[in-house]
Amino acid sequence: MRRICVVVTARPSYSRIKTALDGLRDREDVDLQVIVAASALLDRYGSAVEVMRDDGFEPDSMVYTVLEGESPMSMAKTAGLGIIELSTALGNLAPDAVVTVADRFETMSTAVAAAYMNIPLAHIQGGEVTGSIDEKVRHSVTKLSDLHLVATESAAERVRRLGEDPSTVHVTGCPSIDLASAVLAQPEIDFDPAERYGGVGGSIDLDAGYLVVLQHPVTTEYQASRAQTWETLEAARDSGRQVLWFWPNVDAGADGTSNAIRTFREQDRPDGFHFFKNMRPSDFLRVLLKADVLVGNSSVGIRECSYLGVPVVNIGSRQRDRERGHNVVDVGHDRAEILSAIEKQAEVGTYESDTLYGDGRSGNRIAEVLATADLTIDKRITY
Amino acid sequence: MRRICVVVTARPSYSRIKTALDGLRDREDVDLQVIVAASALLDRYGSAVEVMRDDGFEPDSMVYTVLEGESPMSMAKTAGLGIIELSTALGNLAPDAVVTVADRFETMSTAVAAAYMNIPLAHIQGGEVTGSIDEKVRHSVTKLSDLHLVATESAAERVRRLGEDPSTVHVTGCPSIDLASAVLAQPEIDFDPAERYGGVGGSIDLDAGYLVVLQHPVTTEYQASRAQTWETLEAARDSGRQVLWFWPNVDAGADGTSNAIRTFREQDRPDGFHFFKNMRPSDFLRVLLKADVLVGNSSVGIRECSYLGVPVVNIGSRQRDRERGHNVVDVGHDRAEILSAIEKQAEVGTYESDTLYGDGRSGNRIAEVLATADLTIDKRITY
Amino acid sequence: MRRICVVVTARPSYSRIKTALDGLRDREDVDLQVIVAASALLDRYGSAVEVMRDDGFEPDSMVYTVLEGESPMSMAKTAGLGIIELSTALGNLAPDAVVTVADRFETMSTAVAAAYMNIPLAHIQGGEVTGSIDEKVRHSVTKLSDLHLVATESAAERVRRLGEDPSTVHVTGCPSIDLASAVLAQPEIDFDPAERYGGVGGSIDLDAGYLVVLQHPVTTEYQASRAQTWETLEAARDSGRQVLWFWPNVDAGADGTSNAIRTFREQDRPDGFHFFKNMRPSDFLRVLLKADVLVGNSSVGIRECSYLGVPVVNIGSRQRDRERGHNVVDVGHDRAEILSAIEKQAEVGTYESDTLYGDGRSGNRIAEVLATADLTIDKRITY
Amino acid sequence: MRRICVVVTARPSYSRIKTALDGLRDREDVDLQVIVAASALLDRYGSAVEVMRDDGFEPDSMVYTVLEGESPMSMAKTAGLGIIELSTALGNLAPDAVVTVADRFETMSTAVAAAYMNIPLAHIQGGEVTGSIDEKVRHSVTKLSDLHLVATESAAERVRRLGEDPSTVHVTGCPSIDLASAVLAQPEIDFDPAERYGGVGGSIDLDAGYLVVLQHPVTTEYQASRAQTWETLEAARDSGRQVLWFWPNVDAGADGTSNAIRTFREQDRPDGFHFFKNMRPSDFLRVLLKADVLVGNSSVGIRECSYLGVPVVNIGSRQRDRERGHNVVDVGHDRAEILSAIEKQAEVGTYESDTLYGDGRSGNRIAEVLATADLTIDKRITY
Repeated sequence: MRRICVVVTARPSYSRIKTALDGLRDREDVDLQVIVAASALLDRYGSAVEVMRDDGFEPDSMVYTVLEGESPMSMAKTAGLGIIELSTALGNLAPDAVVTVADRFETMSTAVAAAYMNIPLAHIQGGEVTGSIDEKVRHSVTKLSDLHLVATESAAERVRRLGEDPSTVHVTGCPSIDLASAVLAQPEIDFDPAERYGGVGGSIDLDAGYLVVLQHPVTTEYQASRAQTWETLEAARDSGRQVLWFWPNVDAGADGTSNAIRTFREQDRPDGFHFFKNMRPSDFLRVLLKADVLVGNSSVGIRECSYLGVPVVNIGSRQRDRERGHNVVDVGHDRAEILSAIEKQAEVGTYESDTLYGDGRSGNRIAEVLATADLTIDKRITY
Repeated sequence: MRRICVVVTARPSYSRIKTALDGLRDREDVDLQVIVAASALLDRYGSAVEVMRDDGFEPDSMVYTVLEGESPMSMAKTAGLGIIELSTALGNLAPDAVVTVADRFETMSTAVAAAYMNIPLAHIQGGEVTGSIDEKVRHSVTKLSDLHLVATESAAERVRRLGEDPSTVHVTGCPSIDLASAVLAQPEIDFDPAERYGGVGGSIDLDAGYLVVLQHPVTTEYQASRAQTWETLEAARDSGRQVLWFWPNVDAGADGTSNAIRTFREQDRPDGFHFFKNMRPSDFLRVLLKADVLVGNSSVGIRECSYLGVPVVNIGSRQRDRERGHNVVDVGHDRAEILSAIEKQAEVGTYESDTLYGDGRSGNRIAEVLATADLTIDKRITY
Repeated sequence: MRRICVVVTARPSYSRIKTALDGLRDREDVDLQVIVAASALLDRYGSAVEVMRDDGFEPDSMVYTVLEGESPMSMAKTAGLGIIELSTALGNLAPDAVVTVADRFETMSTAVAAAYMNIPLAHIQGGEVTGSIDEKVRHSVTKLSDLHLVATESAAERVRRLGEDPSTVHVTGCPSIDLASAVLAQPEIDFDPAERYGGVGGSIDLDAGYLVVLQHPVTTEYQASRAQTWETLEAARDSGRQVLWFWPNVDAGADGTSNAIRTFREQDRPDGFHFFKNMRPSDFLRVLLKADVLVGNSSVGIRECSYLGVPVVNIGSRQRDRERGHNVVDVGHDRAEILSAIEKQAEVGTYESDTLYGDGRSGNRIAEVLATADLTIDKRITY
Repeated sequence: MRRICVVVTARPSYSRIKTALDGLRDREDVDLQVIVAASALLDRYGSAVEVMRDDGFEPDSMVYTVLEGESPMSMAKTAGLGIIELSTALGNLAPDAVVTVADRFETMSTAVAAAYMNIPLAHIQGGEVTGSIDEKVRHSVTKLSDLHLVATESAAERVRRLGEDPSTVHVTGCPSIDLASAVLAQPEIDFDPAERYGGVGGSIDLDAGYLVVLQHPVTTEYQASRAQTWETLEAARDSGRQVLWFWPNVDAGADGTSNAIRTFREQDRPDGFHFFKNMRPSDFLRVLLKADVLVGNSSVGIRECSYLGVPVVNIGSRQRDRERGHNVVDVGHDRAEILSAIEKQAEVGTYESDTLYGDGRSGNRIAEVLATADLTIDKRITY
């Protein structure tokens, strides 16, 4: 039986990999191992490990690796400590293959640990283009990986052009769309978000229209993150709509973002805003599906929302190079521009569903490839 | 004045970068910083830091990062600890650019630390093809690097095909050839190797013909390294020639190699063999230039020897995909095959000099690029 | 010239060691080296390194070692990472002696690093009794230390009873009293705290009477820290007095404390409260000197306030076993008890100055011992 | 059921704790967890983990923590990395108590990790006196420990004088004596040492009289270890007796020791010497029991040999302050002195058995205390 070890390092990584975990767990030819690491273990960013346990995934190992400080140096050290800890965990679990997701520093840690330990490495979500340190890391991880499970045909083409053997590149779609697909089939919201998930701020009437905001700091523009967040806060308030604001993930610059949010809350005491730290992915997608507009710079706007048809106002450079559907309007970090785009998108309403990032069956497809593909660590560049 | 920080992590890396260090030190527009790390600090592998001090390069920081055990796990942890330590050193030195050399695990540590700390990263010797974990690391480092200083035109082409902006790719030649060039101009050996460098074994008459052997363990074939070394030991002995054997660099498998050498020495007590741990590069090249044949799997056979015209018997897969000149004969890990190739190459004698890997002026060329190129960390894939 | 390396790891450590640093810097027979580490580098807790630079102490090395999460596990890992990083720094600086302060996890890191690197270790503030993990660490560090600079005669007696050679135990007094002494000589407050130090909350009139609150989480009672902080917040509010509340230092449980403060501020919007992250020690002591009462569990209440004569309401177990003067009233974590003690102490007013913890000349005394004592690493237990 | 986690970090630690592990495994009220760490995992020093597996102890976690270089710096970093790794392992295993053995740097790592993670810590072999860094570490670990399982009454007295609560101090004897007791009951040697354990050197006739040598480098006298080993090698050879020499454990200075042994073997090619890396403890004790004399500086000479009555020539300062029986003659690092003591002790022959370090039932006694003692982390100094 093949032992497949998936390393989950952050809340969004888990959302993107969940249905693949389901698929792996359901197979009789796979022994699924799960390592939970880094910010997935931190309360401050909404502990993913609790959600995973509720979903029936008990971690085989938990490794704490995140340094305090949210600075470039702490990101580097977090990556280094991740390698040290993950190599122990991989040594103890002895998997036949390791799975790493996306493009964060823990992704890199997993990749380096697996590569040096001669364990075949599968990378999910390679080949995409976004700019910033994330893009460097993503392609760098591709060059350490032995198996590539990509979301789109153009990502596959990019991975092949990076010199990877075409037989190792599989277009599976993105498993995040699987959840979106399930939510689309059962869209009813049978809970009160503030009641179930706490958070701070005023009460929200989900039937009265609302924005969802998800804005991450942009790591190589550390100093600017406070100002950028502020523009979005002002635009959201000026829209006159209710706002469900989701706290960003840990990263360099998060302090600027946090500071903006706290100061805004104190100065404005905005009753129509509610701030959440975390929400179960399926609940989040139901809330998102019913939103007037998604505002921010999350890849959720690009991926899930293209399938769900939710209108998106995408701010700034974070998603600049990602493939996108018709549902996205791009704006700069300017409150007037953001506000105007919100109004425009709210008027359009729901877009048609687009399968650019998947058709809802990616999890099983990924599980199938992981369970059956040749596993090897011996590769060469194809040119 | 631009601060350029070069990270030296191993004896061979230093040899390859020395003339570039000279070039950087001589420039008035550059403040050269040197970090010495990892096996470059270990006596066991011939402490490079002592040689560097003799050459006038006082380290700005020294970081010990190598884990005991020479296993895949210790290599992974060494990479992780390297990131942790190097990020501190880079934080304290605050360079404008960081230079990393080649393809070892400390190369990767330097690259990850610099990338996350938003310091422009220059990579020397990217784009080459060799197979094994080294190749994974090399291309992975390319994707983290902002400036590429490559040895050959075909390496440059490969880096560009990896999606790097052509304006950041510079063919400088390999600085190891600079030393070879200087040695070719002054080839006389005015010292006795055993006297100057110690080591163990019989005395050698350099005027009576000899082999030089340099055989590294192949990291992803850990178990086999003892057997492979044994074949070479037998072939060298059976050649009836004197043998100057150079201890391999630290790496997974070194224990198998060491064990083979020690057992051989005890069983055979081979008087015609002398084993060295280290030699100053210029002395080594003079000894090499006068050798009948270089035997083993070192890249020195591919690079320096192509320029020097020394006949090479290249064993096994380690250099399988590297560009090479006419001076190289490839054989498997088989004593008969090795012996036969030694005899054939010894008969041929010196080959014509080939500038495939450089013309002897790479160091200054690298210094020039580092001193004057645009430094940025903001890059995107070109396709 | 003797090289003395002082490791500063937190804001309060710096306050306690500052006049000794002054004394060392002024000596011609000492080359002072300063390493700044751990939470002393983090903005979140009021970056001590900025204050040190203002005071003219430029760090020779800065090492980031604090893990995110504020849990027992992150404290352990912070201690481990501290050893790794500090051993590099000590190796590069090569001091003749290392100085570690008090009883935190970075104190332990410094002690272990110095002990294994065979560098004589001087410990400041050993021999005191407080309970909790701090006390374990303090005495454990004593057993690794070669030279003991203690605050009081009873601390000296305790260190000797721990089996330390009496000739290595010096009663110097606590250098924190030196600052208090200088402040007592020039008590005028010529600045507005909120203006100079920011923070959040209402404006404070220093001439209208106020409490100063400094309450740290108690590390082995992690879960309770939120509730304990809440009691103090309520009592302070119910006192009807203005409140200058100082944010606690990093430690396990800080999140509970932070959460209590944030929730209180949102619910109560208490205009008479102002929350500070940091204040220059001399400014802080002037503000303290003028306070009606110091409330909380800080050792400042025990040390500096005994000398300054400031009335103290000391809450809970954190200082339970420390020697104390007449100025301290002890209470439990109960708002009624706290409130009643505040009223009683405010009525008493200023106490007489007590030299239990020093006479104001400790810094020079410590510098003298460090500059002239025999330095050795060879010690045995005396029984 | 109480979860007791024992951390085994080196071959000799395992020997000393083995019967306690047996005792714990046999109890129905204990769930035994075993972590194997540090040099216990390294082949180079005789992998203890293999022996443990043969004995039926499958590790719950293995953590690699030893840095290359055998220098003071690598010892410090090994201690630091040990804390990082062990805290993860302890977090995943969640024991009710942790057991640490003796006085090495991994002992300290275990102690710091457990202390900060608020897990009750039991220390075996505290309170002994030896001088050197080991003694600093031993008493320092005592101050972090909550439960003390000591070998002798005088050790117990010393732990109590260190301020530990007498109710937490238990004289159990040393479990190493349990093995010696079993061996004394069945002393027959039914194997050929060279055949079963390999090693290098000539063949040995166990019926013709022989010395056993076990000499560790003394950590704070790094430079001298080669010279010291040399004196012992010469004395052993000059005795004219057969010699079974056991390779020392990893520690700073091991390279000097190794170098001496290798050079001696090459120069002298001593046929009467056989060098072993490792031997199962019970086999080792049988070989020891039959030896003419034990030579070196191992604590085995002090402990096990006092019970077995084997004559010991104890060299140098390593055991200088340990309680000892009549079977020990102390000498300096001088070949003449060593030789003369060997002759004298060989003439005396077997001594009477002494129960100073135990009566053969320590393992069960330790298991009993660990299974039933109150477990708490809340302690204060008793004075």
